Amino acid sequence: MKIRCAQIEVIPGNPKENYETCRRFVNEAKKDAMDLIVFPELCIPGYLIGDMWEDVSFLKDCEFYGRRLAKLSTSKLSIIFGNVLVDWNMKYEDGRAVKLNCGFVAKNKNIMYRPNKLKLPYIKTLQPNYREFDEKRYFMDSKEYYLRKKENVFKNFDPFIIDSMKIGLSICEDGWDKDYSMSPLSIEKDLGADILINVSCSPFTVNKNVSRDRTFSKKAKELKTPILYVNSVGIQNNGKNIFMFDGSSVCYNKKGIKEAGVKSFEESKFDFDLNDSNDIGNFRIWDFAWRENAKESEVKQIHDALIYGIQKYMKQSNLKKVVIGSSGGIDSAVVSALYAKAIGQENVYLVNMPSIFNSATTISLSRQLAENIGCYYAEASISNSVELTLNELDGKTFYNGKISDTISLSQFNTENIQARDRSSRILSAIASSLPGGVFTCNGNKSELTVGYCTLYGDLSGFLATIADLWKHQVYELGRYLNSNKEIIPCKIFTIVPSAELSEDQDIENGKGDPIKYWYHDYLFKSWVEKWNRSTPEDILVQYKKGTLETFLGMKEGRVKEYFKSNKNFIEDLEKWWNLFKTCPLLKGFNLLLY
Amino acid sequence: MKIRCAQIEVIPGNPKENYETCRRFVNEAKKDAMDLIVFPELCIPGYLIGDMWEDVSFLKDCEFYGRRLAKLSTSKLSIIFGNVLVDWNMKYEDGRAVKLNCGFVAKNKNIMYRPNKLKLPYIKTLQPNYREFDEKRYFMDSKEYYLRKKENVFKNFDPFIIDSMKIGLSICEDGWDKDYSMSPLSIEKDLGADILINVSCSPFTVNKNVSRDRTFSKKAKELKTPILYVNSVGIQNNGKNIFMFDGSSVCYNKKGIKEAGVKSFEESKFDFDLNDSNDIGNFRIWDFAWRENAKESEVKQIHDALIYGIQKYMKQSNLKKVVIGSSGGIDSAVVSALYAKAIGQENVYLVNMPSIFNSATTISLSRQLAENIGCYYAEASISNSVELTLNELDGKTFYNGKISDTISLSQFNTENIQARDRSSRILSAIASSLPGGVFTCNGNKSELTVGYCTLYGDLSGFLATIADLWKHQVYELGRYLNSNKEIIPCKIFTIVPSAELSEDQDIENGKGDPIKYWYHDYLFKSWVEKWNRSTPEDILVQYKKGTLETFLGMKEGRVKEYFKSNKNFIEDLEKWWNLFKTCPLLKGFNLLLY
Repeated sequence: MKIRCAQIEVIPGNPKENYETCRRFVNEAKKDAMDLIVFPELCIPGYLIGDMWEDVSFLKDCEFYGRRLAKLSTSKLSIIFGNVLVDWNMKYEDGRAVKLNCGFVAKNKNIMYRPNKLKLPYIKTLQPNYREFDEKRYFMDSKEYYLRKKENVFKNFDPFIIDSMKIGLSICEDGWDKDYSMSPLSIEKDLGADILINVSCSPFTVNKNVSRDRTFSKKAKELKTPILYVNSVGIQNNGKNIFMFDGSSVCYNKKGIKEAGVKSFEESKFDFDLNDSNDIGNFRIWDFAWRENAKESEVKQIHDALIYGIQKYMKQSNLKKVVIGSSGGIDSAVVSALYAKAIGQENVYLVNMPSIFNSATTISLSRQLAENIGCYYAEASISNSVELTLNELDGKTFYNGKISDTISLSQFNTENIQARDRSSRILSAIASSLPGGVFTCNGNKSELTVGYCTLYGDLSGFLATIADLWKHQVYELGRYLNSNKEIIPCKIFTIVPSAELSEDQDIENGKGDPIKYWYHDYLFKSWVEKWNRSTPEDILVQYKKGTLETFLGMKEGRVKEYFKSNKNFIEDLEKWWNLFKTCPLLKGFNLLLY
Repeated sequence: MKIRCAQIEVIPGNPKENYETCRRFVNEAKKDAMDLIVFPELCIPGYLIGDMWEDVSFLKDCEFYGRRLAKLSTSKLSIIFGNVLVDWNMKYEDGRAVKLNCGFVAKNKNIMYRPNKLKLPYIKTLQPNYREFDEKRYFMDSKEYYLRKKENVFKNFDPFIIDSMKIGLSICEDGWDKDYSMSPLSIEKDLGADILINVSCSPFTVNKNVSRDRTFSKKAKELKTPILYVNSVGIQNNGKNIFMFDGSSVCYNKKGIKEAGVKSFEESKFDFDLNDSNDIGNFRIWDFAWRENAKESEVKQIHDALIYGIQKYMKQSNLKKVVIGSSGGIDSAVVSALYAKAIGQENVYLVNMPSIFNSATTISLSRQLAENIGCYYAEASISNSVELTLNELDGKTFYNGKISDTISLSQFNTENIQARDRSSRILSAIASSLPGGVFTCNGNKSELTVGYCTLYGDLSGFLATIADLWKHQVYELGRYLNSNKEIIPCKIFTIVPSAELSEDQDIENGKGDPIKYWYHDYLFKSWVEKWNRSTPEDILVQYKKGTLETFLGMKEGRVKEYFKSNKNFIEDLEKWWNLFKTCPLLKGFNLLLY
């Protein structure tokens, strides 16, 4: 039996376009005389679409295109695909129709069922409900559904029989059963499955391929059954964060060894035979780079995911050109190099926007960066405009008919005026004048976690490209981008990070940001990335025990060296915790990596 | 048995502060020789706190303050309160500990259980999972919990016996059983309850009190049992929208008639006796205005909710002063009048920011408005700054080492430059110079739905105060604000709505916004407010049948009059639908009313 794995790009909320993609793949599969083609989870509706799941006309569209896809199957070519099934006759307790996340099998122009007479597709059983996942809100799981139907849920795991081969179908989380009380894959094996097929819609996170391999390879070996894992590519967002779907589809033989796969982050496919001795062979693979998927360094994974996310997000939003405020520092340099790589240097516009506080050093580094990249470059001073604003508004008098109140702008106010002038005046105007033009937010995760940025200033931008990277990771990514050729001038790696908004942030005298990245990166990380988030109390306990650096995962010895006294340490902790807790940050979109 | 209903303000995510509020109320109740005091649902943790429900240290805090609150009970005074119960020994399938939304009864310094030996508080049974509600994500319902405990779920509805009175406890949605397959209140009555107590954390929506009355009054009458409904006040937000909690706690006798209650939107209380004949009497009520709760006009409800939301949000965020861009139009005028009323005119700063396109009419209306309100007022022209920006950036040349690209700013670009100059330059600077100063976003729902606004321009602001009101509702609210005295100059109601950003929007010649509020308000509403959202196809079907105006709920006859041909109608529909669908709007906070 010749099986094709179709790693397609899924567009969330666009059943028609997704159907067209499937049709293209089905036609190819017919030409290549395949017996079965497998598409990913929810490949018709998409996945992260929020309350669009409650939109009846959308659900009807999904049903319509699901039926059309089934019609493309023939007596020779069977199709497996993920789609939503709406049971219009069964209501949730609040009156809405029950929806199920399903794996369908089609043959001979029709949806095909199993010998158990239930006329049901495979229904997803294990549901993730954390982070971006919200399945209980939208879908009923197989256990509850079968209970309400007064049927034995084990029938959900009966294999589908295609050309006398027994296919055990499962959906994404169903294969990640470590913490769950049941294992759909093991049950399917017990029920006689010759192969286990897991259709997924699983977003990229750093090192996810390692855990994927561990999970599925172990399972295939344990059950002595080959496993085909089919994941989608593309991007999907939950209204706040953008998730990249890496695909990384792969097939494990019954010893748990990966035999075939495709490269991450591209629409692709591979073929293999499922033979009578219940194993797989006769592979056809288009690109052998897939073998590297699970071995890549973290920085390469991050690099590839960001490039992919930029490309897809710009394409989906019909954007063409990017304007980047280029300060001469590492953040904007890394963002510039990324966009040049992702969309071509001919679409990248760097603008250096000096004030009296900007050093000759950073201006010339910014110029050098543009030259290395080969992108458009210009300088636009903010001096006249900031001066005009100060003249117009400092000392401005309000009157209420009785008394007056006079505005006085502090140094702090003036720093923020500069930041807003750059983003909301210059970058916005230039970006909006370019066809399909936007400008970027260059903030890193360290700054954004504690709100060390200006609203309508450097916090602005269409996409916060590196907002899920701590400062030390930004440096690392910069070095990676430089590995073949110096794109980012090497001096940018050595100057002190600084906003250059006042004399107190003069880099020529080594003055810069109040965030000490070698410590605060790890401190802030413990507040936001751990499942059990650290509190200041946790930090103090570790500090007292002398185990803080191990606890935070940072280099040893530096905390004691840097903080002259316990008092210093505690003051610093309190300062940043308060900023973190009161930070009224309304972030725009960012690409999520962790 | 003397019962006190404690309608307290709950601060989301702050168990300590909520405990302190409860303690204050308990001490009063002791002085007043009460036998039972009842607090609202989740009055220790709060409700809309997102993934803070996964924070172990927060959950331990909730447990701690719950125990402390129980300790305040005595042999005389029992306490009913809502809190989270964590079953640290029972795990969700993904490994997290199970959490339950519970009603606790405390007596004699201890949590009190029922004679059924289960040592469990009342567990919420019906869970809302739509709009802002996400209970399945965070809580297990009683049915699943009892099943996993291998216990009969009916034991969850056993009444608590306090001083020989049988109390049937329920939580919020448990009382709204219309669409559900079971009715906790009816089961409790069957099990002998003398009174039904529903503790709630139920946000305000327009006319909610009418449906509350209908629901609970009917139930009390049907079951011939008094019902006490205890809801919290305060605001809570889900990271995007702010919800006002109106309280409106009330007690129905066994005929379903409201006998006692408290005013909406304030921390308050009332007392009554539960007597042996299973009815209530001997009321002590502090403010009889509660009787009006369910009879108020929509515009009064909206007004009260917005004033309350402004006050609470500013207080919680430690904000003092508000700067408002005052155009002389209805939106900013209504916002100005609201803030003056909510925080006092001495804290309101109106700024009129004219350009060459602003009419003398709107400038003088803006001045008149400030005078009527008695707030601070100033004018700050954007002419010089916009001219400087055009001079600096129009014709700006980028160079990439080989070729150059010259920026050219269109009229459309220039309109947006003006909007950004007002918000990101002037309003931001003035607001940041004032202690606790912020500036407002004055956009209405009609504009924001289709993105008729400028990012970093009029879309900016700390709170989009009237963003959940269609334009016709803004006018209505304006007239309501004027009902005692002309605050908003009456001419503001008659000039044509206009952004005044170009000659094409000259109000002196009757030119204004492209949105025709008398039609588009209702059209857009059908796209976003209906549970089954309308599609352009639905609209066309209704238009063809001649039933569109009834379908949209708007005045009859005007659509045909306005659109000269079917082609005009369809073009207009397509234009706005495309803007709605592609609108990349990243809204800040707004107060939610619907």
